[in-house]
Parts: sequence; C-alpha cells; structure tokens
Amino acid sequence: MNRPLKIAVAGLGTVGAGLLRLLSDNGGLVERRCGRPVVVSAVSARDHGRDRGVDTGAAQWFDDAVAMAREADADVVVELIGGSDGIARSVCETAIAAGRHVVTANKALLAHHGTALAVAAEAANVTIGYEAAVAGGIPVVKALREGLAGNRVGSLYGILNGTCNYILTQMRETGREFDDVLAEAQRLGYAEADPGFDVDGIDAAHKLSILTSVAFGCEVNFAEVHVEGIRHVSAQDIRFADELGYRIKLLAIARLTGYGLEQRVHPCMVALDSPIAHVDGVFNAIVAQGDFVGSTVYEGRGAGAGPTASAVAADIVDIARGTRIPTFAVPAAALQRLPTAPMDRHVGAYYIRLMVVDRPGVFADVAAALRDAKVSMEAILQRTRSPGEPVPVVMTTHDARESAMREALRRIQALDTVTETPAVIRIEPLAR
Amino acid sequence: MNRPLKIAVAGLGTVGAGLLRLLSDNGGLVERRCGRPVVVSAVSARDHGRDRGVDTGAAQWFDDAVAMAREADADVVVELIGGSDGIARSVCETAIAAGRHVVTANKALLAHHGTALAVAAEAANVTIGYEAAVAGGIPVVKALREGLAGNRVGSLYGILNGTCNYILTQMRETGREFDDVLAEAQRLGYAEADPGFDVDGIDAAHKLSILTSVAFGCEVNFAEVHVEGIRHVSAQDIRFADELGYRIKLLAIARLTGYGLEQRVHPCMVALDSPIAHVDGVFNAIVAQGDFVGSTVYEGRGAGAGPTASAVAADIVDIARGTRIPTFAVPAAALQRLPTAPMDRHVGAYYIRLMVVDRPGVFADVAAALRDAKVSMEAILQRTRSPGEPVPVVMTTHDARESAMREALRRIQALDTVTETPAVIRIEPLAR
Repeated sequence: MNRPLKIAVAGLGTVGAGLLRLLSDNGGLVERRCGRPVVVSAVSARDHGRDRGVDTGAAQWFDDAVAMAREADADVVVELIGGSDGIARSVCETAIAAGRHVVTANKALLAHHGTALAVAAEAANVTIGYEAAVAGGIPVVKALREGLAGNRVGSLYGILNGTCNYILTQMRETGREFDDVLAEAQRLGYAEADPGFDVDGIDAAHKLSILTSVAFGCEVNFAEVHVEGIRHVSAQDIRFADELGYRIKLLAIARLTGYGLEQRVHPCMVALDSPIAHVDGVFNAIVAQGDFVGSTVYEGRGAGAGPTASAVAADIVDIARGTRIPTFAVPAAALQRLPTAPMDRHVGAYYIRLMVVDRPGVFADVAAALRDAKVSMEAILQRTRSPGEPVPVVMTTHDARESAMREALRRIQALDTVTETPAVIRIEPLAR
Repeated sequence: MNRPLKIAVAGLGTVGAGLLRLLSDNGGLVERRCGRPVVVSAVSARDHGRDRGVDTGAAQWFDDAVAMAREADADVVVELIGGSDGIARSVCETAIAAGRHVVTANKALLAHHGTALAVAAEAANVTIGYEAAVAGGIPVVKALREGLAGNRVGSLYGILNGTCNYILTQMRETGREFDDVLAEAQRLGYAEADPGFDVDGIDAAHKLSILTSVAFGCEVNFAEVHVEGIRHVSAQDIRFADELGYRIKLLAIARLTGYGLEQRVHPCMVALDSPIAHVDGVFNAIVAQGDFVGSTVYEGRGAGAGPTASAVAADIVDIARGTRIPTFAVPAAALQRLPTAPMDRHVGAYYIRLMVVDRPGVFADVAAALRDAKVSMEAILQRTRSPGEPVPVVMTTHDARESAMREALRRIQALDTVTETPAVIRIEPLAR
C-alpha cells in the first residue's frame, strides 16, 4: 500500500463536518481514486466538546489551529475557518511556510491575499487548492485552470451568490419585496444574520476576482471590482423585467476590453433564452468563453456542506494523485497586472424605471434629457394611468456609454415631475 | 527554460489542423500554463501535399502514422485518425508500447478497446488523454475523473450527439420530417454522408460507455449499451411533445440500479424545466449526480475543429504539467465488471402514439389492452376527428416495467383498428 496522505482540518463547522463525513462514507472510493488512503491526522475547532455527528477520535486535537498548521503530522492543511485575515490567514501562511499543501474554501482570503499566497506557495513548492472557494461543488476552477488551458478566455460571467439568486427567484415567484424575502431567507438559513456580504455583492465579487485571475492569468484584484448589490431591486422591476422578456440576476462579469480588464458585479436583465436565465434558487452557474472552445457552461449547487465538501475533496484527491499546477494557472511571477477598464467607458443597454407625476409633457421632458446626454432610447412605456399622481415609467435604451447614461440620469432626476431616484439596471447581452 | 514537450500528430483533418492552429495562435499562453513549450515534432497524414492552412514545416513528416508512433522524437502521440480499429488502434498501441503518452479524440476506439488500452498504458507508465472523445470542448471527462472525485456518482445523462440534437431541434422549429431535415443537415455538413453512426445512436453510445467507465469505475462496456436512434421520431410526435410540455432529446443515460448498471441511448421526452430541455442545436450537455455534490451540469459545443482542438490541448497541457491520473479514474486492475441491468426490468413512464381508425370503442379496446398488461394510463387524447379514417391517439402512462409495456404494445398492435406500429418514446424524469 502506498503511503497515506495525511490531512489536518482547521474548522469543523458545516463544511468541515461534511468533509469528514465524505472521507468516512466514501473512503474506499477516494483511496482507489488517489492510489493511497487519505487520513485525517489532526483537527482543530473552537469547541472541542461539541458533537458534530462525525468521529474525530483518531485525529490529534489542536486547540490552536495555527499551531496545528505548524506542528501537525500532515501533508495538507485544510482551512475551513473563513475570513480574509486573522486565524484563517495565519493558518494558511503557516502551513505554506511549513511546506504543507493548503486546501481552502475561503474566498475572502484569496480575494484579498491570493497573489501573495500564490507567491509563497510557489516558493515553498506546495499547492493551494481552492475549488471550494468559488461556486460550491461546481468544478469551475479546474475547468478554467486545466480544462480550457488551450484557450485565450475573452470573458466569463456567472451567478456566484446563491443567497442573492434565491432572493431574486423568490421575489419573482411570489411578487414580494426584497426586505420581506430576505427576512424569510434568514429564517430558513439561506441568508446570514448580517446579510451584507451576500446581498451587497461582496461575496460574488470575491469569487469573481478569483476566477478572473485563473481565467486571464492576472493578479487577483478584488479592489478593482465594480460592485453593486440587489437591495435596490424592487418587485416592480421584476414584474417589468418579466414583461420585457428578461430575468433579473446578480451577475459577476469579467471581460478583456480595449480599455483594460472589466470586473463587475451588479443586477442585470438577462434575456430568457440566455444560458443562465433559468438557473434559479440556490444554484450557481458560470459561462466561460474561450477563443477555440466557444461558450461553456457549468452549473450546480453553489453552497452547502455536501457540495463544498465535494470541492474540498477534489482538491485533496488532486494532491494525493500528485497533480501540481500553479495556483492561478501560470507561475506567480508570470501573473500580469492588468489595467482596470473604467466603468465610465462601459458601453451597454439600460433599463430605467422612473416614478413620475402622471401629466402631459413628461415623456417629452424625459426624452429631451436622454437626447441631450446623447443616449438613444429603445422603448418607453407607461402602463398605468393616475392623473396627477406618481406612476412608473419604464424605458430601455440602446447601447450607451455609462458616463453618458449617468449624465442622462442627472438630467432626468432634476425634472420636477420625477418623484424618486430612478431605478437603473443594466441589460446584459449574453450570447451562447 | 524547461525541456519542451514534443508531440507527434497523426491525422491532419479538421481537428488536426485546428490543433496546430491553436498551438500556433496560443503558443505563448500554452507555454506559460505548461511551464514549458509544446512543440509539434512530427506529423502524419494521408496526403503530404495538401494545403491545410497551417505550417507543418518544422515537424518531421511521416507517411506511416504507425511508424511515427514508434520512431518519432516525441513524448506524446496525438491520434486524430478515427475508427475503432485499423491504423488508429495501431497508432495508439504502438505509442503506448514505445512509452509515449497518447491523446486521442477517438470515441469508437475507446468504446471498443478502452479497458485494454488502460491496462497497456498503466503497464507502460504512460497516460491516455481522451477529453476530446466525449462532448467536444466540454471538460466533462476531467469533471468526472477529478472534479467529482470525492463523490459516488449515482447517475449521469446527457445530450452527446450534436447531429441528432440539431436534427431534433430543426424538426421542432420547422415542423419538418426527419428525412427532410437529415438531408439538409448533410448539405450543411452537420451530418455525414453515411449518417448511421449519429442518427442510430451509436456515436452517443460510444461516448456514454466511456463516461460510464470514468464515473462508475467500471470496465468500458459498449456492447451492453441499449441503443435506439432517432429515425422513428416523427414531426407529429414532436408536436404532441410540445403540447404535453416536453422536448424530445436523444439522451444517453447511465445509472446504478438494484439490478446492475443501466446504460441506454434512446429518444426521450424531457420536461421543459429539466436542466437540458433548452440545450438546442449542435450543443451538448451532461448532467452528473454525485452523492455529496448533488446535480452538476456541463454544457458547450460538442464538435467542430475549435472545441475538439481545445479538449486535445487540455490533455496535452495536463501531460506537460506532469499530471498523471489513471485512464478511467482508478487503476485499471481496480475497474469493476458490473452486471448489466436488463432493459426488461427498466421502470419508467411512456408516451405512445397510435394510428387508429376513428370509430367508437377504440379507446375501450386500447384501455383494456393496457389493463391486461398491468400498465396504468396517465392520459389519453385524440385531438382530430375523421370518422372511419386513421387518426392519431396519444397516451402517456404512469411508471411501468418495460416488459409489461412490451406486452401492452403487443396487445395493442393486435387490435384491428390499429393501422401502424405504435410510436413509443420513454418519458424521462430529470430532476435537478
């Protein structure tokens, strides 16, 4: 029998317990696939006594995860603590410095320190596996890093946050407002007590910055992601989207443009026949376009104990099999520092919903504001009548520069018939 | 600089030329990702003189591909000739015997000789890459072999033949009959002059038997795939499918059942909300279910020079990076010989279209035939009236055993009011 691969697991929450269950339930299978057994030699968590429904008896217990990363009898340290700094970061840095491979589900850590960790891992001749950090069980990091390795990737986009997708799906299916659905999602455990990371788009931006680095061979640059969340999406907008033949999705998009690398996370209107319009609820999906392969789509559960444990296990199997690939597909020294395409230069179509006082001349004023900002309108519709009262007016534009659009919105908002800040959602053309 | 990886390419048709173009266009990128250059050191094709729009000048020319596999100065032999035996097989066997890695797009070869080739490769300590053999550019072999390596896969299904999917999509969109659309597909180059491999389901069965082996860790067993093609699908059935809320797709399905391994390729009715109902035209898609990851979906172009070259290149990059994984995910000696679940034991729902003489009592006769065979009907509908003439009657059943269904059909066909062989299409429940 070949030498076992020994792993030390830091963090025994939902995912950590899921991983131990996987290695126990599927241990024989994993051993056949690895050509050697995988043994949990050490574990660390906050509370030693807690019953997690899994047996950690054979593993050495550490109260201090950093000490475990340094001292445990382990080839691989699995970091499932979370957070961009603090203990999680120390565990990974310590493990690398001690010459151990690292497997982590920590997107915040990689978004903030990915490049530095890649440099350190390369110097120490160890690998960092982070399939679980993006899109749960979907093997999309592997697809980009290996499966599409012959391609120049031109763009990628995806639904990377299950909480937002669940909320938007529920809003559409029930007609309820954001706050209401969020509260329900929190009760059901689909959203955190502090939902900001999810609903403000930060979690999706973390994941996007990681995928961007793998796909384009550049340094991880989370700070340059343009981020908008879904708090301002109203039930009204979702109804209008339906009427116009769109779904509203929180998309994460990365593209190489003539002005540099564009990374953005924001709600989008996507056409019903686009490959991800029907990806609902807690599912994630990613579409990657390569110059030879064309468009490829990856879909699955984006979170949860099982899917995340599956991704962690895949990284462990890779290490056990001896697979060694640079963290972000190319040697850390070769990672490019790409200029950021300014959002001002972004060109696209827009959906705009205004609340205006229902009286003659309003359309003319709005149309003039758009004309003066050089934005060309595709359609405008006012479905309800209520003379003298505020009613919604919905417009879609042809392709316009973001800067022109902002100017148009400034002019529209200055009109005294406009009673609320306009709701603006970008319309994203997503070719197959 | 690290030592280059030298590759010898046997076959310079569409895919071979596509590969050379990829290695030329994206050579720098591939080198960064491999950590070493990839050099085409030798090529072989039928016609030396033909202009393929790519430069093979630096490579050594061989008239004899088998001689090249034996003698070329190459680490990897790329087999792009095709066919389950003959030269293609000799090239691969010779390359392995000479200690060279093999990359191939040849599904027929692997379907017929996959297990033997895996044994030979393992003995010679070389790898066989065959991502291009299944689903074109979609990295689904990698997903199953590595990305889901922590999972026990319970089932997989997919649209694996682009020609059939194109024909079925065209039939639905235009209302035309099979023969008519096939002729057009042949004119457009989407179908071969001899279309049997595609439309009779053999190509999909080849691919299925390969995916089955990777997913379930069993020997490749193409002979045991139950295969039906799409020649008998009529425009009428496609219209009725639409009315009933289904799409007709040629699916390849593999499942572990209580009676053994089920492998089948046949037209299916799939619900509109299933993950692959909207995969149209030449696109392929695969859905794999793992016990921890749940359902994952992979979609992309299933054929063509670019996508296939992309898959071949991914295998080459893997080899250049030093990745070494058993051909079918576990050591060849550990591949199981799984019993075949007999189709007689298959349980599912069925769509049946009869042509019956429109006269009173027909429904009663048909209902009695089903009752006597212990098949329970879900719905029956006769849309058109034409007293005394043959009209279509469409039924759907609840879950029934295939053997019972066959008995019911035998009884139905014996009725003198039934004027044609019934059209039968299985209804496949495809949960996300």
